[in-house]
Amino acid sequence: MENPENYIPSLITATPQEGRELAIKLARKSIAAIQTDPEIRKKLRSDYANDTNQLIGSAQVVAIEFQTIAAANNYWR
Amino acid sequence: MENPENYIPSLITATPQEGRELAIKLARKSIAAIQTDPEIRKKLRSDYANDTNQLIGSAQVVAIEFQTIAAANNYWR
Amino acid sequence: MENPENYIPSLITATPQEGRELAIKLARKSIAAIQTDPEIRKKLRSDYANDTNQLIGSAQVVAIEFQTIAAANNYWR
Amino acid sequence: MENPENYIPSLITATPQEGRELAIKLARKSIAAIQTDPEIRKKLRSDYANDTNQLIGSAQVVAIEFQTIAAANNYWR
Amino acid sequence: MENPENYIPSLITATPQEGRELAIKLARKSIAAIQTDPEIRKKLRSDYANDTNQLIGSAQVVAIEFQTIAAANNYWR
Amino acid sequence: MENPENYIPSLITATPQEGRELAIKLARKSIAAIQTDPEIRKKLRSDYANDTNQLIGSAQVVAIEFQTIAAANNYWR
Repeated sequence: MENPENYIPSLITATPQEGRELAIKLARKSIAAIQTDPEIRKKLRSDYANDTNQLIGSAQVVAIEFQTIAAANNYWR
Repeated sequence: MENPENYIPSLITATPQEGRELAIKLARKSIAAIQTDPEIRKKLRSDYANDTNQLIGSAQVVAIEFQTIAAANNYWR
Repeated sequence: MENPENYIPSLITATPQEGRELAIKLARKSIAAIQTDPEIRKKLRSDYANDTNQLIGSAQVVAIEFQTIAAANNYWR
Repeated sequence: MENPENYIPSLITATPQEGRELAIKLARKSIAAIQTDPEIRKKLRSDYANDTNQLIGSAQVVAIEFQTIAAANNYWR
Repeated sequence: MENPENYIPSLITATPQEGRELAIKLARKSIAAIQTDPEIRKKLRSDYANDTNQLIGSAQVVAIEFQTIAAANNYWR
Repeated sequence: MENPENYIPSLITATPQEGRELAIKLARKSIAAIQTDPEIRKKLRSDYANDTNQLIGSAQVVAIEFQTIAAANNYWR
């Protein structure tokens, strides 16, 4: 289940927006590290993309990842 | 699924209230980055807006996002 | 859905108890920012006030908001 | 719904154990601030005390509250 | 419901591994502080030990407790 | 239930990617510390690997563990 791809060379981003997109990417990579089959992930998409409970749960993951990235970038002050 | 719009130029806000509104905006943008179809999002609204469990889950996302924004603004001390 | 009311002029409170009450207020304001109809919110109250699962979820929101407020007040040391 | 009782004069405790007990107390006070009727709370107890899902959710609240109290006490170093 | 036992004399541990085991212990002690009957807890074990949803919820509690302990130990740098 | 194996000699990693993989490892070790039977864990895998709700819950655990590891490594600045 090791994910050989280096998808996170750095936590440092130029802007908060890039930080936001990195947070969404990290959330997705966690799912991919657990469910490694891309075909299954594609089939599962409709399970959560139309389920508000799961969209809210996903937004929680993004919020936690973004909190880490924002601290890493000293909040782009 | 890339969201080209730059919806977060900065984490810095003039007041805690603006920080609060930014936190709510970020929570929503996470949902939009996952469910990119605005028509589907509009239809889904009634699923969570009248479900207290999901309203509470949403409030958790806002609380985490606000925690990040408050730290970014040094708590508007 | 913009909430014009400025319900959070500051994160600074005189005591931990006031900080606690601000945390509970912020949690509620998040719900109100999402479900803006006070009549619906009143009707929904019984859905969560007697559901321990949702009371626990609400307590999580208060705990996260209080964590932010306590840090803002340097833990009232 | 205002809880006039001052149940949290300070976040500072002599020991981690007292900090732990304060965290459990804060978690409970959140529930009491939302469901203010002690008779209803007593009746609801069996709903969560024998439900592992809700015991785990309660442990999450205690963990977040303890995180705040531990930081307030500089981890009792 | 007071838990007289002093199960957390200190947050300081010699190694991250000990910090990990303390985090798991704290998570369990929270459950024991809420459901104080050891016989009931033993009976409830099968409810969560074979339920992946609850195993994941438990792992969240451990992650939050470990976050506190790691900060207390300055990450064992 | 003591897990004698020392699976976390240090929180320090060379890169964010290694930090990410450590976070996933820690999340799994929490599950193993609670459900110690590897055969049962193997059987349970299909319960969560195809359930988006549980994949999202798992991603939350990884996000919290990674937050701790990133702080330990001073965000690999």
